[in-house]
Amino acid sequence: MSSVPTPVESPVLVVGTGLVGTSVALGLTAAGVQVHLRDVDAENVQLAVGLGAGTDAPVEAPAIVVLAVPPSVLAAEVEAALAEFPDAVITDVGSVKQAVCSAITEPRFVGGHPMAGKERSGPLAGSARLFEGRPWAIVPTEYSSAAAIAAVEDLARTLGAVTVRLEAESHDRAVAVVSHVPHLVSNLAAGLLNDTSESQMVLAGQGLRDVTRIARSDTGLWVDIIRANAEPVAETLNELRVRLDELISIVEDKASGLDAVLARGRSGTNHIPGKHGDLPSDVTTVYVTIDDEPGELARLLVDTGDVDVNIEDVRIDHEVGRPVGLVEILVVPERAEFLAGALNSRGWTAYL
Amino acid sequence: MSSVPTPVESPVLVVGTGLVGTSVALGLTAAGVQVHLRDVDAENVQLAVGLGAGTDAPVEAPAIVVLAVPPSVLAAEVEAALAEFPDAVITDVGSVKQAVCSAITEPRFVGGHPMAGKERSGPLAGSARLFEGRPWAIVPTEYSSAAAIAAVEDLARTLGAVTVRLEAESHDRAVAVVSHVPHLVSNLAAGLLNDTSESQMVLAGQGLRDVTRIARSDTGLWVDIIRANAEPVAETLNELRVRLDELISIVEDKASGLDAVLARGRSGTNHIPGKHGDLPSDVTTVYVTIDDEPGELARLLVDTGDVDVNIEDVRIDHEVGRPVGLVEILVVPERAEFLAGALNSRGWTAYL
Repeated sequence: MSSVPTPVESPVLVVGTGLVGTSVALGLTAAGVQVHLRDVDAENVQLAVGLGAGTDAPVEAPAIVVLAVPPSVLAAEVEAALAEFPDAVITDVGSVKQAVCSAITEPRFVGGHPMAGKERSGPLAGSARLFEGRPWAIVPTEYSSAAAIAAVEDLARTLGAVTVRLEAESHDRAVAVVSHVPHLVSNLAAGLLNDTSESQMVLAGQGLRDVTRIARSDTGLWVDIIRANAEPVAETLNELRVRLDELISIVEDKASGLDAVLARGRSGTNHIPGKHGDLPSDVTTVYVTIDDEPGELARLLVDTGDVDVNIEDVRIDHEVGRPVGLVEILVVPERAEFLAGALNSRGWTAYL
Repeated sequence: MSSVPTPVESPVLVVGTGLVGTSVALGLTAAGVQVHLRDVDAENVQLAVGLGAGTDAPVEAPAIVVLAVPPSVLAAEVEAALAEFPDAVITDVGSVKQAVCSAITEPRFVGGHPMAGKERSGPLAGSARLFEGRPWAIVPTEYSSAAAIAAVEDLARTLGAVTVRLEAESHDRAVAVVSHVPHLVSNLAAGLLNDTSESQMVLAGQGLRDVTRIARSDTGLWVDIIRANAEPVAETLNELRVRLDELISIVEDKASGLDAVLARGRSGTNHIPGKHGDLPSDVTTVYVTIDDEPGELARLLVDTGDVDVNIEDVRIDHEVGRPVGLVEILVVPERAEFLAGALNSRGWTAYL
């Protein structure tokens, strides 16, 4: 998985210079690949060229064409690219794969989907490092050639991504379950907050913030994503509805089975890969209070680093009504007691 | 809100020496109050006494009795305490308020609910600082005397909590919406993951982790909480079901209105109080890659502190397949560009 990828053949044509297309171009350029850019939006191309992502000069025979275009035009653009460049490998970066993968029967096409995004969009948000350490789904059709698949995998790995090969149907079902439906669920939970009063909302804790965080994302982008993956999303939402109905009748009738429902959710979280793709290991939280001033968090983490404890995660608890922060430092259980003691001896208020 | 509370009158009797009871006792003892402890579990009392939370000696006439007992016995324990100590103010720390508040007509009783918890339970998890900066709902009945309300508010504020006064019905509806139903929703979303394959789960991102984080909590505790607040929870779940049905038909029929559904959720997040109880302000994310070694995060945050930028939040993105971490530093938008530049000039790879 982490062997060095075969160098990507030049030139590469990137069609579409939004966030993802520009980031692909920047990353390939940084890796020494000659990159050409094309976009129906002339201004975006100029911005991407200005950022050093590549050239807008025409290209005769690209080795690879990367299509970073909206889902509504994707299949047509793939067909056009296959016709225009009869020797090129063609791939795309669309977030949904069944429509395009079932439409294309040419061995030179391989679908792709890098799992990277940002709150901002457009070429100016692009970064050569956007794909570093991120999963990149490689989605061959039943016609894709082994050579084309290898070329697209090398491209993804050159950009620092970790490739995972999936069939289109499995991919679309997966993104419905791990991304699209969780997004919608977060949104529905957040929607319930519209009718609450300010004094009721004071009772909100970290759990609510976690659950509703992604509901703050750009709605336009998500409308497109959900629309493009409508069938697997609807199917997953219907599964959710069955579970919700079951839960409602348990709660209303004060019936037994609530523990089984909760246990099912809890076991579901065990399927989420943790740090470095491993299953999540046990962590213990060390709580530390800090003043809310520049440098305080840094000073705390210096002290943590000094006692040679590796931090699995850090969370700052946003509190009501006082200029003090509560920091949660997540470490492996066997180091927690030691860390808290060491921090207390350095003047912090730390506790498990 | 932040004026100094009137000192709490001694002695205080804390009944129930689990996490919350022991923490109340530890905090009051630290504030110089004389605390007596009582629990049906003799071992828990001994542990709490051993931690310095108070004494298990009998008490004749406590000024305040704090009941930190399970919801199933709460109303009966309040009645018993009112009878046993005819001059004491009685309060509780239960997470649901309507049942007890409608059962008690004595002016000396005032309901309470500190919004603080931990992953661990029991006296050994107790901490005098557990309530620091946390909301504490003060829930008078229609019979509660002004003197009793003031005494309970002073107790909560002595423990560092921020008090908010709510009626029982409003409180229970609020915790259903901001805590119990989000918990159940997180659980339902996580439950969908049970049928996914390992290669599908590789596509999981930070959004899924956020949405499902609280689904990992202790299920037994949550069964009790949901049961105790069954009516407002069922009501809120039914609201959610109406919204889910609406969403499913929009997705299935590829109908319009998806943007309105998403916008409703997005506007709901604006009701969540942010840092120090303010409405959430705009923040910008600065991304920085770091090596996964002890001290690296600290070194990064020292550099961040040195450039005098206050960190609103920090998140460590757990990545697949490589020993490198991606840290997200959230700062106010007008400082983001400056921070990224300063970090890059110190040798970090930072970008917006």
